[in-house]
Amino acid sequence: METVRVELGGRSYPIHIGAGILDAAELYRPHLGAGRVAVITNPVVAPLYLERVRGALERAGAVAPLDVLVDDGEQAKSWGALERVFDALLGARVGRDGVIVALGGGVVGDLAGFAAAVYQRGIPYLQVPTTLLAQVDSSVGGKTAINHARGKNMIGAFHQPAAVIADVGALATLPERELRAGAAEVIKHGFALDAALVEWLEAKLEALLAREPGALTHAVRRSCELKATVVAADERESGRRAVLNLGHTFGHAIEAGAGYGAWLHGEAVAAGMVMAAELSVRAGLLEAADAARLRALVIRAGLPAKGPSMAPERYLELMMLDKKAAGGRMRFILLERIGRAVMRGDVDERLVRDVLAAGAPPASAAAAR
Amino acid sequence: METVRVELGGRSYPIHIGAGILDAAELYRPHLGAGRVAVITNPVVAPLYLERVRGALERAGAVAPLDVLVDDGEQAKSWGALERVFDALLGARVGRDGVIVALGGGVVGDLAGFAAAVYQRGIPYLQVPTTLLAQVDSSVGGKTAINHARGKNMIGAFHQPAAVIADVGALATLPERELRAGAAEVIKHGFALDAALVEWLEAKLEALLAREPGALTHAVRRSCELKATVVAADERESGRRAVLNLGHTFGHAIEAGAGYGAWLHGEAVAAGMVMAAELSVRAGLLEAADAARLRALVIRAGLPAKGPSMAPERYLELMMLDKKAAGGRMRFILLERIGRAVMRGDVDERLVRDVLAAGAPPASAAAAR
Repeated sequence: METVRVELGGRSYPIHIGAGILDAAELYRPHLGAGRVAVITNPVVAPLYLERVRGALERAGAVAPLDVLVDDGEQAKSWGALERVFDALLGARVGRDGVIVALGGGVVGDLAGFAAAVYQRGIPYLQVPTTLLAQVDSSVGGKTAINHARGKNMIGAFHQPAAVIADVGALATLPERELRAGAAEVIKHGFALDAALVEWLEAKLEALLAREPGALTHAVRRSCELKATVVAADERESGRRAVLNLGHTFGHAIEAGAGYGAWLHGEAVAAGMVMAAELSVRAGLLEAADAARLRALVIRAGLPAKGPSMAPERYLELMMLDKKAAGGRMRFILLERIGRAVMRGDVDERLVRDVLAAGAPPASAAAAR
Repeated sequence: METVRVELGGRSYPIHIGAGILDAAELYRPHLGAGRVAVITNPVVAPLYLERVRGALERAGAVAPLDVLVDDGEQAKSWGALERVFDALLGARVGRDGVIVALGGGVVGDLAGFAAAVYQRGIPYLQVPTTLLAQVDSSVGGKTAINHARGKNMIGAFHQPAAVIADVGALATLPERELRAGAAEVIKHGFALDAALVEWLEAKLEALLAREPGALTHAVRRSCELKATVVAADERESGRRAVLNLGHTFGHAIEAGAGYGAWLHGEAVAAGMVMAAELSVRAGLLEAADAARLRALVIRAGLPAKGPSMAPERYLELMMLDKKAAGGRMRFILLERIGRAVMRGDVDERLVRDVLAAGAPPASAAAAR
């Protein structure tokens, strides 16, 4: 087992990474109080891992851990699902001394983390991510949220977990499509922050996709290290942290435009990154050859390299609603080189339209001109 | 105008107190960014003060401030009301650079503050309290929340305002019943923290209830000073801050048992404080004469000195659900002397039953024995 620490003063926490650590009672024990523990998970993950986690919690001293099941998929990040979680917690009299365990992928983590952020004005929670996406990205950093019909992650909070327990063994049961979606976030970390990780991916992508434990552990550990450094420097995303959103301005528009759940988040980020790299080239920031390396890696990972057919106007409308749009101006995370992402608020809208038109269906593209 | 500061490092903020300061543009200006401003208020407050606040915001540079109206009364602290606020903010494209202004009493402040806490993972907000209760208590300290059918303030966040603008002139239009309910919180601050404030109240209560500006300003300023000191020492209520909940364990049970809105919060706190003082006497902590001074002041203020007729079992059930119940044990804020409240988790339940039975209807009291 390896441990990466996120250094945030009084809110610092460990990320434990290893194979088979999901039921290690000693990893849970330091974070349980006198109160009730509630495990929030979904009907896909529960049959696979719930009993092992319950067992570990009981050995760690938790009395009768409560299970709360939410729907599988992005639609679970909803107002209604959140309310049902609160009903369950209050019905079981989970108090301010209670602890939530988020067992599942990014959706469960975002929803359970947000529930923990606002339940009785905030209680602690543990992230036990069971997807590659959650292990390399969403379980770390304290971003929690639910979606709104008008935009993804519009209602949420920054609420750091007390610990992250990332068992790469749990990835054995992950559907192929979700594994690839998770790889998109590893690619993101490489292109945004670390050229060496990009080179590693170019050498080891097939080992990662074949779920070789060593490759999985390396990808998770390196991603967590990179993310931990950025989060420690800028917890609430007032600046630097925004570079982790590479591919997200286009990606959120793809997810919203296609209807939440139609595209996996990682798939939308993959296509969004390719579009952001193309925009970086058009803006004169990035070499075309480096954008081509991103595109090639995305395609090799079996991920989409372009967005769905939508009129550029629709893309722009959805992108304007992105949380990163400040004062009515869109902000983009662009690449200066591989391993170096920057936030730019001064991108010429015509360049954005050019990128969108290149991927738009012929009729809409013609109409938009 | 007087200004009290809440010292919380990077989250410090001023509380401005004075007559006629509601439309002082210079008090708003430092807190507005480039983004849109949304004023959240209700149909009772809007005709009285919205235009003045809008005018001040416009003079301070805000372009086309958005108005969002929520229902009047405790029922507005609901899930549905919160969702409608988000719909309005997103519909008007309020971004992460937006600012919320909470114009109204405690309900508006709690709801608007919570909306600000979680909208796009948190945006700044200003409190412009227009009731005595909000000016002396709820607008200061960053506690925000909505209610749940199973308990008051169950879903919420600690989110400090950027500033508080407390115009005692706005209290001229406050209904008599609400003025008295606000006085309950001033009495609370005195009995929990400051014997001198209790003596001042015993001398000046009628001047306060007659809305003499000097008396109002003194009550608001002294209450804010006391609360600011406690909040600065314990922002998230891990210890000392809990003494501000004097009367709230009984009070929340009264509010929930009677149905939200039937009792005003201040009325429930008044009766709850008398019950807490009685419990303090039975526990051997407080002199009976001091409990009698509290009771006398509550009655002089035209406030209820006992709770509604409910079986003791029902009280206990509702009290167990209070957020202060930890590990299944009720916690009470008791008085050791006037101006000195303490939190106690070791109160004998029989003493609590005695206090409840003393105020219970004969049949239920008999049944409970």
